[in-house]
Amino acid sequence: MQETPIYSTFISEFKVRPDDIDMFNHVHNSTYFDYVLAARYEQMETSYGMPMEDFLKQGYGWVVRAAFVDYKRPLGLGDLFTVETGIESINTKGCRVKFEIKIKKNNKVACNGWFDYVMIDIKSGRGMKVSEEMITRYSI
Amino acid sequence: MQETPIYSTFISEFKVRPDDIDMFNHVHNSTYFDYVLAARYEQMETSYGMPMEDFLKQGYGWVVRAAFVDYKRPLGLGDLFTVETGIESINTKGCRVKFEIKIKKNNKVACNGWFDYVMIDIKSGRGMKVSEEMITRYSI
Amino acid sequence: MQETPIYSTFISEFKVRPDDIDMFNHVHNSTYFDYVLAARYEQMETSYGMPMEDFLKQGYGWVVRAAFVDYKRPLGLGDLFTVETGIESINTKGCRVKFEIKIKKNNKVACNGWFDYVMIDIKSGRGMKVSEEMITRYSI
Amino acid sequence: MQETPIYSTFISEFKVRPDDIDMFNHVHNSTYFDYVLAARYEQMETSYGMPMEDFLKQGYGWVVRAAFVDYKRPLGLGDLFTVETGIESINTKGCRVKFEIKIKKNNKVACNGWFDYVMIDIKSGRGMKVSEEMITRYSI
Repeated sequence: MQETPIYSTFISEFKVRPDDIDMFNHVHNSTYFDYVLAARYEQMETSYGMPMEDFLKQGYGWVVRAAFVDYKRPLGLGDLFTVETGIESINTKGCRVKFEIKIKKNNKVACNGWFDYVMIDIKSGRGMKVSEEMITRYSI
Repeated sequence: MQETPIYSTFISEFKVRPDDIDMFNHVHNSTYFDYVLAARYEQMETSYGMPMEDFLKQGYGWVVRAAFVDYKRPLGLGDLFTVETGIESINTKGCRVKFEIKIKKNNKVACNGWFDYVMIDIKSGRGMKVSEEMITRYSI
Repeated sequence: MQETPIYSTFISEFKVRPDDIDMFNHVHNSTYFDYVLAARYEQMETSYGMPMEDFLKQGYGWVVRAAFVDYKRPLGLGDLFTVETGIESINTKGCRVKFEIKIKKNNKVACNGWFDYVMIDIKSGRGMKVSEEMITRYSI
Repeated sequence: MQETPIYSTFISEFKVRPDDIDMFNHVHNSTYFDYVLAARYEQMETSYGMPMEDFLKQGYGWVVRAAFVDYKRPLGLGDLFTVETGIESINTKGCRVKFEIKIKKNNKVACNGWFDYVMIDIKSGRGMKVSEEMITRYSI
């Protein structure tokens, strides 16, 4: 029986920016996407040692193929929050990254969900095969 | 046997704004959320005769409870696109709105998916029951 | 005595997008910049016959060097508005574009001001000399 | 001879978020406005002891009346930067806040400029007189 690999998760901490607040006086729903993106970029650099800048220099980028978000409670002006992300599965076609955003002051979940990422060639916009070496480096 | 109600769908047309473009030279992934939002607001007014402004004046708002997006191909600078939305299901707890964004020049799908909306009291932020009258007005 | 050249102005019409609204229930102050940008891109294509896409393909871009905005009254949810822009001065170093955003329903000014643009080489990020040919094409 | 009051300046530090990057691969020009706003909110709380949340609770807000930005060099993906702000002048009608954004890695100026703020009643949107007490609290 093959074991499901268990991947590490990593946590980044950020603060809501005033321009993230919308007419309902809480963080705009699409902005949570950008928080996950920010966490992922930070963690690519500090946790995986493969900053997005390195991909970009080689002409590659990771882009979102599909996404699911489940909103629990909103973040508000000035809130500190954490974004925990981790790879759920990865293969040559791409990877699924799950995430959970928590409000720091009460440790309650703001939202969670997942993103499916694929690697693209930036010039052509076409999908690229994720190399075994990359898969290994992400499989921590 | 109970019939599944078939709800109408409506189409709005927009143009990509230069500030929607990100470092990959196409529309930023979270911005598609905002396109659906824009379509929905327009259609609440013109197709359902219940503009969001009316909800806001009464102290109510519709907020996203969950969302799923499947990205097919990106929109680029200057692209015209359509956003077709329609209610998939609605009850006193909220509604699911499905959407499809199409690139106008080739009629290909940029992305599709759905949003679950709930009604909230803006002051308290708490969920509200959707009244039967509202359900009827949306059931077209 | 040398005459000051009088350049044409052009008008684009847009609608406020729901994600443009901030916690004060009107269009976020930095978003007016993006409205001017959108107008300018549209007018480069339709009024000057030199779409930004053509510049980008040649490896050039126009970027803002300085900007001044004078806010008169805010745009709100669902408002239609016009953006009138025109070149105030242009030379080999760049150009100053003045703008005025008006609320369509009452024809009142939302804000006005100017942007100084310079042309850059996208790869190096360095400023480029605006050619006499370009100056002539903009001098309408 | 009356002395010009010299007001304190304060420094906040932030990091560029990936969604701040535009098609030219650097921070989008209007986003620098949002960085100044973020710095100002943080400093209202920590440096002046008058968080924006307190104004909002009382039904007041500070909004931008005019702004000037002089761009020197762009911030890029992942850059850390500082935003130094300080009151240049303040009276019952409002205040002028000057700012300077510096790139942390080389201590060079990204942009500087000023914002004129006025206080408004959020419900009516009308300007409010800044009280002498507030002026005193800001005059540090």
